[in-house]
Amino acid sequence: MTDFTPKREDKFSFGLWTVGWLGRDPFGEATRSPLDPVEAVKRLSDLGAWGVTFHDDDLIPFGSSATERESIVSRFRGALDETGMTVPMVTTNLFAHPVFKDGAMTANDRDVRRFALRKVLRNVELAADLGAKTFVAWGGREGAESGAAKDVRAALDRYREGIDTVCSFIKERGYDLKLALEPKPNEPRGDILLPTVGHALSFINELEHSEMVGVNPETGHEQMAGLNFAHGIAQAMWANKLFHIDLNGQNGIKYDQDLRFGAGDLRNAFFLVDLLETGGYQGPRHFDFKPPRTEDYDGVWASAAGCMRNYLILKERAASFRADPRVQEALKASRLHELSTPTLGSGESVSDLLAEDGFDVDAAAARGMHFERLDQLAMDHLLGVS
Amino acid sequence: MTDFTPKREDKFSFGLWTVGWLGRDPFGEATRSPLDPVEAVKRLSDLGAWGVTFHDDDLIPFGSSATERESIVSRFRGALDETGMTVPMVTTNLFAHPVFKDGAMTANDRDVRRFALRKVLRNVELAADLGAKTFVAWGGREGAESGAAKDVRAALDRYREGIDTVCSFIKERGYDLKLALEPKPNEPRGDILLPTVGHALSFINELEHSEMVGVNPETGHEQMAGLNFAHGIAQAMWANKLFHIDLNGQNGIKYDQDLRFGAGDLRNAFFLVDLLETGGYQGPRHFDFKPPRTEDYDGVWASAAGCMRNYLILKERAASFRADPRVQEALKASRLHELSTPTLGSGESVSDLLAEDGFDVDAAAARGMHFERLDQLAMDHLLGVS
Amino acid sequence: MTDFTPKREDKFSFGLWTVGWLGRDPFGEATRSPLDPVEAVKRLSDLGAWGVTFHDDDLIPFGSSATERESIVSRFRGALDETGMTVPMVTTNLFAHPVFKDGAMTANDRDVRRFALRKVLRNVELAADLGAKTFVAWGGREGAESGAAKDVRAALDRYREGIDTVCSFIKERGYDLKLALEPKPNEPRGDILLPTVGHALSFINELEHSEMVGVNPETGHEQMAGLNFAHGIAQAMWANKLFHIDLNGQNGIKYDQDLRFGAGDLRNAFFLVDLLETGGYQGPRHFDFKPPRTEDYDGVWASAAGCMRNYLILKERAASFRADPRVQEALKASRLHELSTPTLGSGESVSDLLAEDGFDVDAAAARGMHFERLDQLAMDHLLGVS
Amino acid sequence: MTDFTPKREDKFSFGLWTVGWLGRDPFGEATRSPLDPVEAVKRLSDLGAWGVTFHDDDLIPFGSSATERESIVSRFRGALDETGMTVPMVTTNLFAHPVFKDGAMTANDRDVRRFALRKVLRNVELAADLGAKTFVAWGGREGAESGAAKDVRAALDRYREGIDTVCSFIKERGYDLKLALEPKPNEPRGDILLPTVGHALSFINELEHSEMVGVNPETGHEQMAGLNFAHGIAQAMWANKLFHIDLNGQNGIKYDQDLRFGAGDLRNAFFLVDLLETGGYQGPRHFDFKPPRTEDYDGVWASAAGCMRNYLILKERAASFRADPRVQEALKASRLHELSTPTLGSGESVSDLLAEDGFDVDAAAARGMHFERLDQLAMDHLLGVS
Repeated sequence: MTDFTPKREDKFSFGLWTVGWLGRDPFGEATRSPLDPVEAVKRLSDLGAWGVTFHDDDLIPFGSSATERESIVSRFRGALDETGMTVPMVTTNLFAHPVFKDGAMTANDRDVRRFALRKVLRNVELAADLGAKTFVAWGGREGAESGAAKDVRAALDRYREGIDTVCSFIKERGYDLKLALEPKPNEPRGDILLPTVGHALSFINELEHSEMVGVNPETGHEQMAGLNFAHGIAQAMWANKLFHIDLNGQNGIKYDQDLRFGAGDLRNAFFLVDLLETGGYQGPRHFDFKPPRTEDYDGVWASAAGCMRNYLILKERAASFRADPRVQEALKASRLHELSTPTLGSGESVSDLLAEDGFDVDAAAARGMHFERLDQLAMDHLLGVS
Repeated sequence: MTDFTPKREDKFSFGLWTVGWLGRDPFGEATRSPLDPVEAVKRLSDLGAWGVTFHDDDLIPFGSSATERESIVSRFRGALDETGMTVPMVTTNLFAHPVFKDGAMTANDRDVRRFALRKVLRNVELAADLGAKTFVAWGGREGAESGAAKDVRAALDRYREGIDTVCSFIKERGYDLKLALEPKPNEPRGDILLPTVGHALSFINELEHSEMVGVNPETGHEQMAGLNFAHGIAQAMWANKLFHIDLNGQNGIKYDQDLRFGAGDLRNAFFLVDLLETGGYQGPRHFDFKPPRTEDYDGVWASAAGCMRNYLILKERAASFRADPRVQEALKASRLHELSTPTLGSGESVSDLLAEDGFDVDAAAARGMHFERLDQLAMDHLLGVS
Repeated sequence: MTDFTPKREDKFSFGLWTVGWLGRDPFGEATRSPLDPVEAVKRLSDLGAWGVTFHDDDLIPFGSSATERESIVSRFRGALDETGMTVPMVTTNLFAHPVFKDGAMTANDRDVRRFALRKVLRNVELAADLGAKTFVAWGGREGAESGAAKDVRAALDRYREGIDTVCSFIKERGYDLKLALEPKPNEPRGDILLPTVGHALSFINELEHSEMVGVNPETGHEQMAGLNFAHGIAQAMWANKLFHIDLNGQNGIKYDQDLRFGAGDLRNAFFLVDLLETGGYQGPRHFDFKPPRTEDYDGVWASAAGCMRNYLILKERAASFRADPRVQEALKASRLHELSTPTLGSGESVSDLLAEDGFDVDAAAARGMHFERLDQLAMDHLLGVS
Repeated sequence: MTDFTPKREDKFSFGLWTVGWLGRDPFGEATRSPLDPVEAVKRLSDLGAWGVTFHDDDLIPFGSSATERESIVSRFRGALDETGMTVPMVTTNLFAHPVFKDGAMTANDRDVRRFALRKVLRNVELAADLGAKTFVAWGGREGAESGAAKDVRAALDRYREGIDTVCSFIKERGYDLKLALEPKPNEPRGDILLPTVGHALSFINELEHSEMVGVNPETGHEQMAGLNFAHGIAQAMWANKLFHIDLNGQNGIKYDQDLRFGAGDLRNAFFLVDLLETGGYQGPRHFDFKPPRTEDYDGVWASAAGCMRNYLILKERAASFRADPRVQEALKASRLHELSTPTLGSGESVSDLLAEDGFDVDAAAARGMHFERLDQLAMDHLLGVS
């Protein structure tokens, strides 16, 4: 039996807000007491994680003075040094404070947008200072509940202006930092701008410094729109824009569940890990989950450990799937290899193509794709009965 | 009371496959007998439509000889001439024949991909010949039901190759024709590639002739992913890529319903028409709906007439909403106008922004957005009680 | 133009927790300061409402002493007397306090279940004391996030025991009070027990005093499962179990939005009001909504007023729809009247039925149902263009 | 390694319409040629199945003469005798023929309802004749696409009348046959009556012979409403109404996918098998799936074999989960056993309960439920890494 103990080289990272979530939900009060970020770093390190990430306000309470901020950061840095943990990513909280109730970068109120930008820029400095390579932007409040409340095109103009400003600032400062936009279809707004990986990728294309900006897709966010997460990740990788990833679990289209990785759509998680591990993704395996509100801190750490364990199990199973000669044969029977051959021959003209004759439509239509056998082999490997 | 009779300048168009749908669904046989395309053109013209569109196979049965094809097209052209109806758009059926069961441009089988391309190219010639300005590509079979059955990145390579080939052909021939990709999240495949407007827009950006390619979003397709259709259309317009639109109705996340326009999410339809009419969209108002299987042909024409009537009612209501001084005042109270003002001042540097002081967070947080009053005014106008 | 000003006889009621919602959501802090219940009563009365409802903790903070409780209730009663407002319904908060994190009547912990029951029973006394006729039970925490965490059959045993105990208590005390169970599919639990109106109706049938227990369906809750709300209400009425109703708005399958009534699925709201007004429902028209977090108290009252206004508009429109001779003719063309005729004749035996011959299947299959015309007439009336 | 070869005692059954599905979907033609029911019986028998089920029209084409019917049934019976296969269940096709476009038992047209009843009754005779013990009724066309098209309460009256008539007929004839209603939320109708297990259970309670009628829930149908299938099955068992079950796979809320069992929500399938195997369900394990349209008959049989294999794997895993001492300890830590203890003590009065004092709310609130550890143990067993 393989050992599923996480190691640093697995590049597992966790947000402070994940293990530190107090369990307050729309219908209930906190069920856990606050977790000291330094304690979080130590416990995560003990569990085998490699990195820790945070929103500015997770570490430094909103409204802290410069002195408080310095002292907090210094103590946090001490924990990082002590444990060897890294800070691969930092992000900004532009959603919790009531001032952001109508959005941050796309708030109707210009002074709110300016305040939001300042909050981001200051956090960029901290991110660079802590050695983060990725700066995530989740625009959770950029959206609307009613049709006339937001001019979407004007809002996208402001969103672009905001991201362009942050990129220019990073370039000016010479920081080694990339941006990753995190899409989400809804919640906490009725509809959020850039609702899916696709919308975010398209938006990025309109930016001044688009080369600095990619996406940070989250399992549950895409699944809240009923989309195939592995497919979305594949399209992001195809566009060379998978800069970071948020792994968790979601049981279909409903409120944002943030279950531990592996819970929710397990079969999609299998194909996702297969894709990440074989598709050249080099970034962190970042867990953005919420240990259920029913748990005490024992449960929190069990939940965090489970995220990593499930990833490692799926990694082993995906590798065994790809290595199985029966699978290779089944892939061939399904003609997967033909998909990598261009449709036109080298140097073939459209006239050549149009001139081709003799394709037997009925014979081609009768060929089976053998996908069910292939999929059952995947199931067998996933379940460990191969 | 305004007259809601459609006129040619309203640019209403219908697919032959809409009024011609026989009512065959996954669980039932056809309930209507076939409709002659010439009859369809005449009836639609009588109802006030301006254009008619089709898949190749809607007009010319799959497998027709060249002579049959010529005779069919000639007779169809006669109906167009007689009625003055136009063919603003043509599209290719790459999904009905069993040969396309694993896709067309992204089928694993290379010979199927080649056949599909030939089918498209021949239809492009017909489209140009009939004066169509838009060529729609719905890749309804480009997708998968199981995780290992499709290498999504390889499939996107082939998809790009296919669209690039079609674009090159159009350019070579000098046709005045643009392509419009139609996204859909699922059905008939478990997951379809380019599942939303966003994914399609991002894909277009990777094309060789991306300037020739835009999107043809369909109401129900976006709503099958729970997305706000008017928001998606706004992002497509923002990217200058709304080349065509498919209007219909859908009751939320379920199978593709293709209800008549207005049925389904009526409030979103109101804001959609408001956007199309004030946002500079000049293309056809194309209805891609299916008159329910319960209807005979009387019901079919009632349903088609309803699509146009509902559009015209909503157009009048949106205009009255925008013209109402109380609405203008409410928009001001909601500070919509501030969203059009850049966040940074003209020539303002990031340093200037960062140096700004004195923003009263709590006061800003306390400001109400007054969206509920604005939304109720929209409701009043929609319902005609203003 | 009809006057859409609410009157006492319209029986509009609001929960204290609706206009009193502070705007705290899973990702953000409160945006409004607390509202005095007495102020709420007065403002609602001024707007034309007839009743006010509450959870125990909305009025009397959790943990209040007996003296505090008495003083609070006395002051509240004063406001009721002053305004003439009624308390038609009371409910118990069994979800906010962390002690209920695994449920109340179905918590795994027996002592928690006992505490929950005591909390309900004490609140029943208050409800009776204030003259409420309906006691609502929403089991928002009765559920689970993971498969092994709850034995659903044992949980249903405990749920039944709990409701039976409450019913027995009411009977013992001789209170004139009925129970109404409120279904919800998920949120805040991953899956909630009794997820739909149907599940609740079936559960009620297993109760000891089932005659005392009905349902309190909420628009958004059923729509979170993609169900047709008007259909669910019709089935509840058919079973004589519609004891109370929670009206609000929801944009399809996503998190619980609690929009004001009329927002969300407007067409379903039209048919719902039609059903309530013509179907013999005599209970309160209770709004269980949350004024969006973007609003200050001006927006809160605008939102509350909008709920009632929209109901009254839809009521007028439904009446005009039913009164229109063209509609009556269209209903006849759609053979709605035949549905009220039993399928078997009076005294007809199955043998008689089986002996019948001569049914022309093809002719019957060819008959159109004329539903599109009927539905467009409904649309016209809804939009006020008839 | 356990052998996952199906045996007769596993009671696996398949519908003729499953392996015999031709692959016609809303957007495409058949991809497979018809399968002889006799061939289906033999192949299923060879694969290890125990039973075969059918709609009348699957076996006997609509409109067959009495002689044709007799000859077909006789040949079919021969195959059963030869293989030892049983017919545990029969059902009626009340949805495919256009005459049923507005429903069968609830069609507006009375003559259609009468025809539908005759079709059912004749099929009941055949079912009894073949030794079936369960007669399934899926009312796939009982519903509507628009609000005024159906009076739901009148339709439920007719539905009840129809089912009562069938029950009376069965009793009169002395058949050993029970009815099982199959709920579905939508597709092919926009909304179907009795949309969930709950709605069907509640409806059954209103029937004259309710003791003869239970439910036949289908995995995908409940999941199309986002409901937890295992929870629904548990409630049906709790009401002693799980008469039959349709097992398949579905990837969340979308069109009806009918994937092979195990595909779709694998984690829920694990807990479902756990429940069926330990909860006393004695009926058939019936697969109602559609081998994807991409497959030829090799794929069809691979898919059918996969259904049984996955069930057996999950059965083994569920057994190992329940037998693991660590799981038993974890269940105890989660206090699952307390849920089986009544909340009130034996003979305890409500006054006794109310008099209880000394419950420490804060201490109880602080107790963790340890569900994450329990769920990870389930995951480990499911994945075979325990």
